[in-house]
Amino acid sequence: MMQIIQKPKRGEWAEIVRRPASDTKVVERSVRKVMETVRRSGDRAVRKYTQAFDGVRLKRFEASAKEFREAEKMVDEDLKQAIRLAADNIRRFHEAQRHRDEEMETMPGVRCWRRAVPIERVGLYVPGGSAPLFSTVLMLAIPASIAGCREVVLCSPPDATGGLHPALLFAARLTGVHRVFKIGGAQAVAALAYGTDTVPRVDKIFGPGNSYVTAAKVMAQSEGTAIDMPAGPSEVCILADAEADPSYVASDLLAQAEHGPDSQVLLVSDDVSLLSRTLEQLKIRLESLPRRDIAQKALESSRCVLVDSIMDEGVDLVNAYAPEHLIIACAQDERIADRITTAGSVFLGAYTPESAGDYASGTNHTLPTNGHARAYSGVSLESFQRKMTLQRISREGLGRIGPAVIAMAEAEGLRAHAESVRVRLYNEGQ
Amino acid sequence: MMQIIQKPKRGEWAEIVRRPASDTKVVERSVRKVMETVRRSGDRAVRKYTQAFDGVRLKRFEASAKEFREAEKMVDEDLKQAIRLAADNIRRFHEAQRHRDEEMETMPGVRCWRRAVPIERVGLYVPGGSAPLFSTVLMLAIPASIAGCREVVLCSPPDATGGLHPALLFAARLTGVHRVFKIGGAQAVAALAYGTDTVPRVDKIFGPGNSYVTAAKVMAQSEGTAIDMPAGPSEVCILADAEADPSYVASDLLAQAEHGPDSQVLLVSDDVSLLSRTLEQLKIRLESLPRRDIAQKALESSRCVLVDSIMDEGVDLVNAYAPEHLIIACAQDERIADRITTAGSVFLGAYTPESAGDYASGTNHTLPTNGHARAYSGVSLESFQRKMTLQRISREGLGRIGPAVIAMAEAEGLRAHAESVRVRLYNEGQ
Repeated sequence: MMQIIQKPKRGEWAEIVRRPASDTKVVERSVRKVMETVRRSGDRAVRKYTQAFDGVRLKRFEASAKEFREAEKMVDEDLKQAIRLAADNIRRFHEAQRHRDEEMETMPGVRCWRRAVPIERVGLYVPGGSAPLFSTVLMLAIPASIAGCREVVLCSPPDATGGLHPALLFAARLTGVHRVFKIGGAQAVAALAYGTDTVPRVDKIFGPGNSYVTAAKVMAQSEGTAIDMPAGPSEVCILADAEADPSYVASDLLAQAEHGPDSQVLLVSDDVSLLSRTLEQLKIRLESLPRRDIAQKALESSRCVLVDSIMDEGVDLVNAYAPEHLIIACAQDERIADRITTAGSVFLGAYTPESAGDYASGTNHTLPTNGHARAYSGVSLESFQRKMTLQRISREGLGRIGPAVIAMAEAEGLRAHAESVRVRLYNEGQ
Repeated sequence: MMQIIQKPKRGEWAEIVRRPASDTKVVERSVRKVMETVRRSGDRAVRKYTQAFDGVRLKRFEASAKEFREAEKMVDEDLKQAIRLAADNIRRFHEAQRHRDEEMETMPGVRCWRRAVPIERVGLYVPGGSAPLFSTVLMLAIPASIAGCREVVLCSPPDATGGLHPALLFAARLTGVHRVFKIGGAQAVAALAYGTDTVPRVDKIFGPGNSYVTAAKVMAQSEGTAIDMPAGPSEVCILADAEADPSYVASDLLAQAEHGPDSQVLLVSDDVSLLSRTLEQLKIRLESLPRRDIAQKALESSRCVLVDSIMDEGVDLVNAYAPEHLIIACAQDERIADRITTAGSVFLGAYTPESAGDYASGTNHTLPTNGHARAYSGVSLESFQRKMTLQRISREGLGRIGPAVIAMAEAEGLRAHAESVRVRLYNEGQ
């Protein structure tokens, strides 16, 4: 179980915020082979890997109209209602992210603006594995649909019978995904990056996945297909003061830990009693969990830290860790949040468990892990859009900025750049 | 010189929009070695490569206060004024891109919002080489400064005397760059990605560069340092109808072609007379250019296409090409622009040469090349920011969405997620 690290010095933080390292070399070698084979042999390679890794031989990868119809019948009405409620909130939050054109004149006669355009073809990866994450369908497909992407395709690994979880198909239909393929792992990423006879090539690949999927996405990115972000195992950091409820804190830690044995949690407090009461709760609550072994394993690589002050060391430690999720269970939560610069998503107040944001509050749950919150944002509407700049300059406008353009171009040794202004300003009709 | 491709069939477009391929294997091998050596040996390796590639042995890489002072004296007042005017316009356009928080209640009691935060440490790469691109300093450092990045460092290759172009230092000082290092090529990217004794490690690396710099950025990205985009040789596409002025069109083509022998231009028109008159102008104007040989070489791999209709094939061909720059020299320019989905930056009207946007209109000139405009935007204020989502849910709010969270979590097999809601709604005070 977790040990309390008592008031570590700043020099010791590097060790505390370090993520468990995994052997990427083996993964990369294996993924490289899958990528190259799929590029060369297309569907035939995808079929081979699906048999090898998912244990089913599929004649056709695409989910059929019949499978969608049957899924619709199999999902019970309560779950459908829950998915619809979540979808509505996610849609509301992401619709508010629409770009408002900031058209302006930087100088009289020099009009500049930006226009948001959808990325045309996007691929969504939804992990299967130990938990069928149909909620990820909502998180990726809803912003894709608001953006107006012309071709939205989804890949998810088939189960042992060659099917997909009915709720996944229901969510895909509800959110306007155009095509669903029963393909998982690196072979799915390869199919999306290169295209095969049945899977269309896409411009950008989204979604979480295990280390094989992530390695494949990073390789696809190096070769020119954009990706949302390099996603690793999920993680949460909780800042809790003396007033936090230990049973709430413990339940949030467990919700993270049950994701997978490589999940990581970091609990930071200035109150030793809160820490020990939370650890007690953790022990009790762990016992009743169906995924106890997974959570137990995750907790072993997790950390519990006592600091002098949350507002000072606590905040700095969080920013050094750059957590995917940050729960602030403190009286002064807003003041603390104002000082956080590196976190994916932040949860404030006693009634805001991370699981609310994982499913239904409206925010996106596809977030930067593994310290990537230092430079990456989570998925948003913007992730499915590009922004084009546009400009129109009048003759007078060019008269105002032209001399500066000429001076700079000449100083950079780019005469033809200068000439393209001169011909317009001084040699008209030539 | 360029040949006119007469009304090609759509099946022939793939060949037309293909970029000249370069042998990346050799570049990658060499860059991999530089990256690994800098990671292991830090400044010592940087010094060795600077001597090998730039031909100077530098004791200290950082530009000194004295060098800044001398640069200030050496730049003449006209150029300073030009740089200031450009900087003002760039600042105005990028300031308008500030994020407005879209705080909202997705349901009563469920409050969600996003906050833009600066990426803390950013590295700007400014190419030297045949043209000292001090304008790139403005394009990268101004949005970094508006974003509020805490540490903005710039690398640019030293000239044969071990110095930097005075206008580059002037621009860096003007725009608030914190530190400038005289380091270029892959060794600069490696130093920024890993950090050395003198160069701080950064979270994200920006800026254009040759194939070595680009390969190094892509490798750094695979290893976890974010980059703005994978940038390749510059390119322009011009859509011109019968009313376009051939001398303007030719001057814009040449401005692109003089960037480098690997620059590419694509001219598309529905008017064969416009095409031939433009080619004539091109021949005449090419003769007087100091960088004639470079431009000539670039024009050899460039293309000139006659289409039946600009609004139909013309637009589709542009979208298939996904150009970095698009100049629309047509009467119906706005209607055409509305149908363009894949371009970095668009220039409308007879008095809007690309060079205006390259230097001084206010838009950013760091743009996606090589077809990356299908998925990437150019550099903007957002490139220097992250967006964090935040949320606060009231007891009543959790009452509204809690049952949906519980239903979805249970269906995904994540009991602890459901429990973290139940403990708050049903087991209070436990």
